Amino acid sequence: MGEILKKNVVDLNCDLGESFGSYVKGLDEEVMKYITSANIACGFHAGDPMVMRKTVILAKKLNVRVGAHPGLPDLLGFGRRWIEVKPEEVKNYILYQIGALSAFVKAEGLELQHVKPHGALYNKAAVDIRIAEAIAEAIAEFNDKLILVGLANSKFIEAAEKYGIKIAREAFADRAYNIDGTLVPRSKAGAVITDPNKIIERAVMMITEGKVKSIEGKIVDLGEIDTLCVHGDTPGAVEIAKKLYNELPKHGIKIVAMSEKLL
Amino acid sequence: MGEILKKNVVDLNCDLGESFGSYVKGLDEEVMKYITSANIACGFHAGDPMVMRKTVILAKKLNVRVGAHPGLPDLLGFGRRWIEVKPEEVKNYILYQIGALSAFVKAEGLELQHVKPHGALYNKAAVDIRIAEAIAEAIAEFNDKLILVGLANSKFIEAAEKYGIKIAREAFADRAYNIDGTLVPRSKAGAVITDPNKIIERAVMMITEGKVKSIEGKIVDLGEIDTLCVHGDTPGAVEIAKKLYNELPKHGIKIVAMSEKLL
Amino acid sequence: MGEILKKNVVDLNCDLGESFGSYVKGLDEEVMKYITSANIACGFHAGDPMVMRKTVILAKKLNVRVGAHPGLPDLLGFGRRWIEVKPEEVKNYILYQIGALSAFVKAEGLELQHVKPHGALYNKAAVDIRIAEAIAEAIAEFNDKLILVGLANSKFIEAAEKYGIKIAREAFADRAYNIDGTLVPRSKAGAVITDPNKIIERAVMMITEGKVKSIEGKIVDLGEIDTLCVHGDTPGAVEIAKKLYNELPKHGIKIVAMSEKLL
Amino acid sequence: MGEILKKNVVDLNCDLGESFGSYVKGLDEEVMKYITSANIACGFHAGDPMVMRKTVILAKKLNVRVGAHPGLPDLLGFGRRWIEVKPEEVKNYILYQIGALSAFVKAEGLELQHVKPHGALYNKAAVDIRIAEAIAEAIAEFNDKLILVGLANSKFIEAAEKYGIKIAREAFADRAYNIDGTLVPRSKAGAVITDPNKIIERAVMMITEGKVKSIEGKIVDLGEIDTLCVHGDTPGAVEIAKKLYNELPKHGIKIVAMSEKLL
Repeated sequence: MGEILKKNVVDLNCDLGESFGSYVKGLDEEVMKYITSANIACGFHAGDPMVMRKTVILAKKLNVRVGAHPGLPDLLGFGRRWIEVKPEEVKNYILYQIGALSAFVKAEGLELQHVKPHGALYNKAAVDIRIAEAIAEAIAEFNDKLILVGLANSKFIEAAEKYGIKIAREAFADRAYNIDGTLVPRSKAGAVITDPNKIIERAVMMITEGKVKSIEGKIVDLGEIDTLCVHGDTPGAVEIAKKLYNELPKHGIKIVAMSEKLL
Repeated sequence: MGEILKKNVVDLNCDLGESFGSYVKGLDEEVMKYITSANIACGFHAGDPMVMRKTVILAKKLNVRVGAHPGLPDLLGFGRRWIEVKPEEVKNYILYQIGALSAFVKAEGLELQHVKPHGALYNKAAVDIRIAEAIAEAIAEFNDKLILVGLANSKFIEAAEKYGIKIAREAFADRAYNIDGTLVPRSKAGAVITDPNKIIERAVMMITEGKVKSIEGKIVDLGEIDTLCVHGDTPGAVEIAKKLYNELPKHGIKIVAMSEKLL
Repeated sequence: MGEILKKNVVDLNCDLGESFGSYVKGLDEEVMKYITSANIACGFHAGDPMVMRKTVILAKKLNVRVGAHPGLPDLLGFGRRWIEVKPEEVKNYILYQIGALSAFVKAEGLELQHVKPHGALYNKAAVDIRIAEAIAEAIAEFNDKLILVGLANSKFIEAAEKYGIKIAREAFADRAYNIDGTLVPRSKAGAVITDPNKIIERAVMMITEGKVKSIEGKIVDLGEIDTLCVHGDTPGAVEIAKKLYNELPKHGIKIVAMSEKLL
Repeated sequence: MGEILKKNVVDLNCDLGESFGSYVKGLDEEVMKYITSANIACGFHAGDPMVMRKTVILAKKLNVRVGAHPGLPDLLGFGRRWIEVKPEEVKNYILYQIGALSAFVKAEGLELQHVKPHGALYNKAAVDIRIAEAIAEAIAEFNDKLILVGLANSKFIEAAEKYGIKIAREAFADRAYNIDGTLVPRSKAGAVITDPNKIIERAVMMITEGKVKSIEGKIVDLGEIDTLCVHGDTPGAVEIAKKLYNELPKHGIKIVAMSEKLL
């Protein structure tokens, strides 16, 4: 497969299994139909053993590849608040969570495909090489065939290289970008894009050209994109996931699990 | 190895890695010298990712085999209070914890040897076949080569058989037994035996004859014993572990890891 | 107010503030319009400091009296699984939670009206005098003017008497009763009544006659009822609350906060 | 009492009640003999309802005044890791914890004297006025007669003034100071002073002159000190507490509870 063609292949990933006990979150059964990779919460910021089992079973049924979605130990803050943890702590928190999820994956006769850090851990790793390396090292220690999912054009890339693991470069079609390739924080106006047509347009540009228009209107080079993050927490988000799943192929884009693209 | 000789072979196991965050529990570095199998807490009733990693490393250094010690999700009660959980919940709680520990075992290049449920989960499983089966099923789903450690002469035995996994039949040399082979609850007078000589004497009888004298003075048949539980939470307990480790061989008893005995 | 008239006065209570962090539960803003007393979760089985504050503010705005709704320390099980806790533990768990909620009540310039234990704690106390007494003692130690809300015709009554605190005798118009006055467990068929008209009919009989028809069709004497429990977790439940609030007065029943009835 | 004399009056405070479930921390029964104010953990970073009750009873028995020691919701990190919480969250976390402790104080017939934030919350508030104000506001909302304990010469002072509450200015005789009056972080060499004689000498200078020698040897002006923090987590720490309690009076310093000094 040549470089150009490869650019027209993408994975669609979504955060799932975020319910906890009697608390229900996300429209997992709906969105699971329109993705190729599921990032499953592992009990630290969301998820619990019953939810993890159920979500792995759902992914299996719909032929979606499974990954771990480890977070900081902060259910109250849903893993979105940074905690001053040391890299050594990050490494062991990640290992613990990958291991926990892998038990359910094993029990269902599947294989774990990837690891995508959640929330504050993801955002920190994108800019702090010590945290990115702690995550990459944890993956390498557990299974160096696993794919690390991280923000395109960020610290994730060099961390993955250092530990010899594959990286799936991620982009967010529904989030505004700064000129330096970082995401505009959700707290700022215009950070989240909701117009489905605009999202499709951005997704196509990201995947086929490796570029995005920044919030100020300048073109930002993201490099090749391997996976797009879609959301499944509102009916509107599921609609967008469905639209991406159905319309990207019309633009000559092939949707496959990241492990297939990164073969 | 003949039946008689096999009876003179035993594993010594101990609950370890029970610290949590800044809370220190147990004399792990001391007792680890005198055992062959370590049951490592998995973060539900005790233990955390940093402690788990450290304890696996300590076991590796001292050539002690590693097992998971999963408990109920109750750090406040140290897993000693029964919670009305369903068998399905038990199964997934166990899977989660085995998986979490196995990540550290893998990271250190070791292999998991066994699973011993903790506290209220252990006590309940000994008498309630639904709980014993949920535990055995979890192990079989994860890796049917793992050994289940359970009370000799209890529901653990038939649960292990049903799911085709190995069982290490356990006895407690420092605990009084009822005539039916169950342990006298800690709340009753005489439940815990502290005289080191008496403990050695009882251990020898358990291992070589498969019998114990009940609290009322009658002989109870336990059947063959594969592993003895020793404690490491007080200097006195470590002394007893050391004494067992040094004196059992003088009685013709060979001390080996349970996986070697159950080959 | 004579005995007959008093029987035609009732409080409507509802469990509220059960969200946690980013997890939303219940239609608090809707149901708060149709009740006189709010039982607010205190962070053990549900609720958190931000949710507690917000719920107290909502109750204040809608002129609803506030009570604590303490539960077992089991967010994962939503406080619905019994944990083998000692009465001394129950007492201190209750004190902790009443105190925590009372801080928000104080901050908003209100006064705490009542305490209603949640889930497994409520069900256990209804039949186990040691647990009922632990709860009553906690209330008496904190403030003996607080009202304990407990199942009519259960152990709650004598526990409240022993500690000299007021009791609001509670009934459930949407739950089936056994012949002995206990609730039919939710797991049994017919345990939950969903027909709004039937619920109104049962509520009227409970309040005006102190009786209910058991699941087998026999009349059960509940004695005087001070408060009815309504639910607010589904649109249907809110509809029923609204109907009770609007229709009970048409049957000559006055709806007032329990503290007013028990003056 | 004149300004000079007032300077020769000090409170000795200590963090207590930091055990959790079966995890024991601190030599509370020993150190409680040598202090005038106890800061009791409230269940977020340490402590639990049983421990809180027991610690309040111990303080009552030894005639030590009781205060709340609220922390961040991070038992695993013992409240020592900063979490990116909003001021509104801090305020409600503090209210929750003060309320919870006050229930035990009330149950034992005592009155709460003060509030001292713990760990990362304390350190952040010392330098971040938004956090200091959130803490002061929580106290003012609960009971504006309570004393806030905070680092002398820090943001705590102006926050207390803004909300009209009393402040007990705290110093640490066993910790090195930077030239700007902040504490040298524990991670740096020389941060903790262990020589008992040096600690006494520093304490006397702090109390009688309001000054301390910085780690570089320069004199730092702290202003008047109302309370000294002592530790009780090691036998050595208890010895120092005892020495301070016995020797400060020989230097003309009167030891009294902070509420008496700040009358």
